[in-house]
Amino acid sequence: MSKSHNRTELSELGEFGLIDHLTGNLKLKNPAVIKGVGDDTAVIDIGDSYLLATKDLLIEGIHFDLTYTPLKHLGYKAVVMNLSDIAAMNGTPEQILIGLAVSNRYSVEALSELYEGIYYACERYKVDMVGGDTTSSPSGMFLSITALGRVDKDKVVYRSTSKVNDLVCVSGDLGGAYMGLLVLEREKSVFKNDPTMQPDLRGHDYILERQLKPEPRFDILAELKKADIKPTAMIDISDGLASEILHICKNSKTGCNIYEDKIPIDTATAIMAEEFNIQPVTIAMNGGEDYELLFTISLSDHDKIKNIKGVTVIGHITDESSGVNLITRNGTAVQIQAQGWEHLRQKNRI
Amino acid sequence: MSKSHNRTELSELGEFGLIDHLTGNLKLKNPAVIKGVGDDTAVIDIGDSYLLATKDLLIEGIHFDLTYTPLKHLGYKAVVMNLSDIAAMNGTPEQILIGLAVSNRYSVEALSELYEGIYYACERYKVDMVGGDTTSSPSGMFLSITALGRVDKDKVVYRSTSKVNDLVCVSGDLGGAYMGLLVLEREKSVFKNDPTMQPDLRGHDYILERQLKPEPRFDILAELKKADIKPTAMIDISDGLASEILHICKNSKTGCNIYEDKIPIDTATAIMAEEFNIQPVTIAMNGGEDYELLFTISLSDHDKIKNIKGVTVIGHITDESSGVNLITRNGTAVQIQAQGWEHLRQKNRI
Repeated sequence: MSKSHNRTELSELGEFGLIDHLTGNLKLKNPAVIKGVGDDTAVIDIGDSYLLATKDLLIEGIHFDLTYTPLKHLGYKAVVMNLSDIAAMNGTPEQILIGLAVSNRYSVEALSELYEGIYYACERYKVDMVGGDTTSSPSGMFLSITALGRVDKDKVVYRSTSKVNDLVCVSGDLGGAYMGLLVLEREKSVFKNDPTMQPDLRGHDYILERQLKPEPRFDILAELKKADIKPTAMIDISDGLASEILHICKNSKTGCNIYEDKIPIDTATAIMAEEFNIQPVTIAMNGGEDYELLFTISLSDHDKIKNIKGVTVIGHITDESSGVNLITRNGTAVQIQAQGWEHLRQKNRI
Repeated sequence: MSKSHNRTELSELGEFGLIDHLTGNLKLKNPAVIKGVGDDTAVIDIGDSYLLATKDLLIEGIHFDLTYTPLKHLGYKAVVMNLSDIAAMNGTPEQILIGLAVSNRYSVEALSELYEGIYYACERYKVDMVGGDTTSSPSGMFLSITALGRVDKDKVVYRSTSKVNDLVCVSGDLGGAYMGLLVLEREKSVFKNDPTMQPDLRGHDYILERQLKPEPRFDILAELKKADIKPTAMIDISDGLASEILHICKNSKTGCNIYEDKIPIDTATAIMAEEFNIQPVTIAMNGGEDYELLFTISLSDHDKIKNIKGVTVIGHITDESSGVNLITRNGTAVQIQAQGWEHLRQKNRI
């Protein structure tokens, strides 16, 4: 990579490195800010409870491809991504704001479809759309969604508070969203090479739904509450298990052992991974976009968690010096590296 | 304009028409939302006070041109635009979240400069940057800023609450930001035609600063408070006086008379307008980006407002049937039309 005297390429830092670089020296000015940059949402003291605020961007050609993403699904997913961040703080979402920039390639009807998906997600999760900004872009579509939520002060869960011996748990199953993406990309390229071919998506319902219509796991939060379990740390899985467990361990100053044979992977995901000649565990670790919850609980809650359907214990927290490890099926400890799905997709990214 | 059966072009509706179309049927689900779409910010009941939330997009090639906009100024202005919306609700800004998408054309150093401007504005207005999202774009820069603020419940000011006989007031002077833009555009095209020419920006400090480094008018809010004046309605001037007074009148279901000879226009703005062969009043009405406050006050506050420096009474509110009028210097009433600066810039916009 060429590098002139005063020019550092974005790719040299990567997304998280860039964020650290740009926000590393930030000092908070107002005592109301309990948590700024560095968790799933900001946490702000508003008196009786905490306000949660988060923002995600979705950019055409980077995060979505409209040749196979219905606009209604895109709208729905854009909201869900943000609500999932609120879930990861153990909070309840309340409002969203929408920023939308589009070129004149889009018609009013197309945008109505997008908003249908947005409103459908709002309806389902009892969230109000309260404002935003609509403008033009020179080309393509840019979506920016801000979600606001609330959490009782004694209920908030951060990334940074896992403790040695805590159990590491994950909701649902992993890797499906990424396999759905690979199938969509494959059918797109088949169609590109031979436009008389019809995309063959039969039998892939599960992984396609994982990619196109993810859901935030408020149902799991409700189950945890019912079982009287408060996670000791939590994050949502947007970039893949590897990246997220590293966030928890780095922020909590701990290590962990994750057991490969415990990681929940749906059969449909595993079959497709084999078809693509990729290890299913690689997809689960680095696939991303599953929007499941990764959380730690106290060892004493082990008996309670066992009975909760849809939660799997995949490992435990260790001290920092032990490192962040994947224990493979043959018992070898492999250090977990952050790749994230962005790396997997191998596009021209930060 | 061509129009196929099921395709309505965005330009047929325009920005405000599109927003109405996409949000017209919205029903609020949570009683905590006091105001959703349709004012400078959303207003949310958080117990002792109201939370204010607003979001603005800034898109390269639409809202800014980096050939003449220093990145530091861009960052500063991006924050100010949003803080100005908080000011328009009579509130105090507290936090911002930043969404940034950039192509790899930008270096780390360039983004550091952008953030320097962002943090400078945060410092000046005592605001914390508490989160956001950083990602790639296929080309160009996209900025999305969300600002959060607070206002005492009895202090909030909406657009929709002006009353017949109220005085219409404006802070500062109008049209300068747009004249600054025209000068920058002129020097850019001179440079394009002859790269040996150096841009000549001498003597244009005031209008250039109006364009490149606007300030939100919290100082005016402080003066109003000191004088014990609570505006009856308020909005910030981002799209030009015409567009904003129409918002106030439409939302308040009133009319108004604005007097041309009362509209504050700086000499530097007027001189440049003449040089460009445009009526200064046209610039003030439609130029936009001044980020001044347009507000109405009760007639009984007339004596108090007279003593506040930097505020001009430019007209009064009438009943709805009288219409929204500009009374020209020769006494003719001309109906005010919404053009907005987007129209003036004549680019390919929504």
